[in-house]
Amino acid sequence: MKTVHVNLGERSYDILIAPGLMERAGEFFHKEGIGKRIFLVCVPNLFELHGKHLIERLSSSGFQVTEILIPDGEKNKNLETVENIYTYLIAQRAERSSTLIALGGGVTGDIVGFVAATFLRGVPYIQIPTTLVSQVDSSVGGKTGVNHHLGKNMIGAFYQPHLVYVDIETLRTLPDREFQSGLYEALKYGLIYDFEFFEYFESHLDQIRNRDSEALETIISRCCEIKAEITALDEKESDLRRILNFGHTLGHALEAATAFQGLTHGEAVAYGMIAAARLSHWKNGLEAGTCERIVRCIQRVGELPPIEHLPLESILQAMNKDKKRQEGRLVFVLLKDIGKTTIESGLESQVPAVWEWLRSQARRPLA
Amino acid sequence: MKTVHVNLGERSYDILIAPGLMERAGEFFHKEGIGKRIFLVCVPNLFELHGKHLIERLSSSGFQVTEILIPDGEKNKNLETVENIYTYLIAQRAERSSTLIALGGGVTGDIVGFVAATFLRGVPYIQIPTTLVSQVDSSVGGKTGVNHHLGKNMIGAFYQPHLVYVDIETLRTLPDREFQSGLYEALKYGLIYDFEFFEYFESHLDQIRNRDSEALETIISRCCEIKAEITALDEKESDLRRILNFGHTLGHALEAATAFQGLTHGEAVAYGMIAAARLSHWKNGLEAGTCERIVRCIQRVGELPPIEHLPLESILQAMNKDKKRQEGRLVFVLLKDIGKTTIESGLESQVPAVWEWLRSQARRPLA
Repeated sequence: MKTVHVNLGERSYDILIAPGLMERAGEFFHKEGIGKRIFLVCVPNLFELHGKHLIERLSSSGFQVTEILIPDGEKNKNLETVENIYTYLIAQRAERSSTLIALGGGVTGDIVGFVAATFLRGVPYIQIPTTLVSQVDSSVGGKTGVNHHLGKNMIGAFYQPHLVYVDIETLRTLPDREFQSGLYEALKYGLIYDFEFFEYFESHLDQIRNRDSEALETIISRCCEIKAEITALDEKESDLRRILNFGHTLGHALEAATAFQGLTHGEAVAYGMIAAARLSHWKNGLEAGTCERIVRCIQRVGELPPIEHLPLESILQAMNKDKKRQEGRLVFVLLKDIGKTTIESGLESQVPAVWEWLRSQARRPLA
Repeated sequence: MKTVHVNLGERSYDILIAPGLMERAGEFFHKEGIGKRIFLVCVPNLFELHGKHLIERLSSSGFQVTEILIPDGEKNKNLETVENIYTYLIAQRAERSSTLIALGGGVTGDIVGFVAATFLRGVPYIQIPTTLVSQVDSSVGGKTGVNHHLGKNMIGAFYQPHLVYVDIETLRTLPDREFQSGLYEALKYGLIYDFEFFEYFESHLDQIRNRDSEALETIISRCCEIKAEITALDEKESDLRRILNFGHTLGHALEAATAFQGLTHGEAVAYGMIAAARLSHWKNGLEAGTCERIVRCIQRVGELPPIEHLPLESILQAMNKDKKRQEGRLVFVLLKDIGKTTIESGLESQVPAVWEWLRSQARRPLA
């Protein structure tokens, strides 16, 4: 088992990573001093796949677990779902000492984290991420929140979990496309922070794509370490933490322009990273060969859905609304080299050219 | 001007207290480094009384201020009002550097604080409390939140303001009943924490009731100091801070049992404090004479609305739902003496007798 400690003073917590962790949840939860009363929140399909069994395991260890099923999908990541969970928790007499578990992907984690942050002004919660993207990204860092009909993640809070519990066995049943989406997020950490990790990723891409256990444990724990390091240095995303948004300026706009359909978050970020690499070459001194190497590596992860049909205007409109703007300016995370970032603004005028180039790349066959 | 510093590490902030502060808001906001873009949230009646003029003052100092009017009353302290504010903020392109101002009483402060805590995962906000109760209580401490239809303050967050700005001139226009409600909360600080302050309050009650400026500045700043001290020692209400809930166990139940109508929060707390004093005499060794002295002082603040019509069952039911329960037990803050508290549980069985005694007190004429 690998343990990554996220150092945030009194809000510190551990990320445990191993295959088969869910079988041993009772033992670990007791060690962590989790209270008896637990509310397990997940979508129906995950409940069948893992939730029922987890409840059995926890019940046999003396925990009193109640499930709360929420509807699946990003479109339900909203205040309505949050309110339904509040209502259920109150009706079931949840208390400040009750613990919430988010079992599932990033959407479930974001919703449950936000409920935990705001129910009775804060109750403890545990992340059990079951998708690769949530294991390497959204379950670490304490960003919680839901969408508003006028914008993604507009409503939220910074609120740290009590424990993150990564059972990599859950990746066995993950659909290919979701798995691939997670790989883009994993690759991001190498690009923004760790050249060696990028090289590992690049040279082990076949094993990784084949879901080799050792390769997965290596990349997940390294991603968590990097994210934990960055989060510890800058919990509230004032500066350093912004580099985690590499690929997200265009990525978010793509998601918004496709109404959060047609592209997964990871795929949108993959396009965003390709665009950011190109922009880094044009405007930030990233060498042409390095840019090409990055783009090829992203493309080798797997095929991306087409985006040529999206009009430039819808991208520009979505960017305008992006909350990453500071005093009206759009902010891009760019690379100087692999592992070396800068934060740049005032690049709005470059967006049309980058978009045109990106669409041409999407049409280019893989090498 | 009096300044009370609330020491919470990186979340520290100042409370400024003086008559006429609103006139000088531009100057002070610049000193505090407040960003140019401000959203002023208040109820329509307060906007006419103080809001318009405040916007003029701030605009002439270079701030760009937009007002957001919200409906008045505790019944609108809910997620619907919160969502309407989110929608307006997004439509008006509010950003992370935008500052919210809560101008008004505790309800406005709670709502705006919660919006600030959760919009874009946290934006700065300034409290400008205009009622006595919010000046001595709800604007200090970072408790924010709204009601759920199944319970009061069920949804919320701990989120500290950037600045609390107390212009005691605003008390001139405060209706008698609201003013009196604030005095109960002020008196609470003496009872739980500071015998000297209780004596000051008791001996200056006539001046205080006549809204004498000097007396008001003294009690408001002392209340803020005490609350700041307690908050700094225990930001997240794990233990010490619970003493601030003196009178609130029954107080909240009374509010719930009257459906938040018929009694102000302060009046409900006044009854709760009388009950807690009596319970302290019965169960906590508070001397009979001291109990009587406390009850008389509370009663001298002013007349309380009748409660004899409320059935005991509705009180017990409301208490059952109270979130102060820990692992199913109801918690009371009791006194050993004036200024000395203990936290007690397991007193449910005493509630009927206390309630009977309280109703008899309510019928007793003032000395």
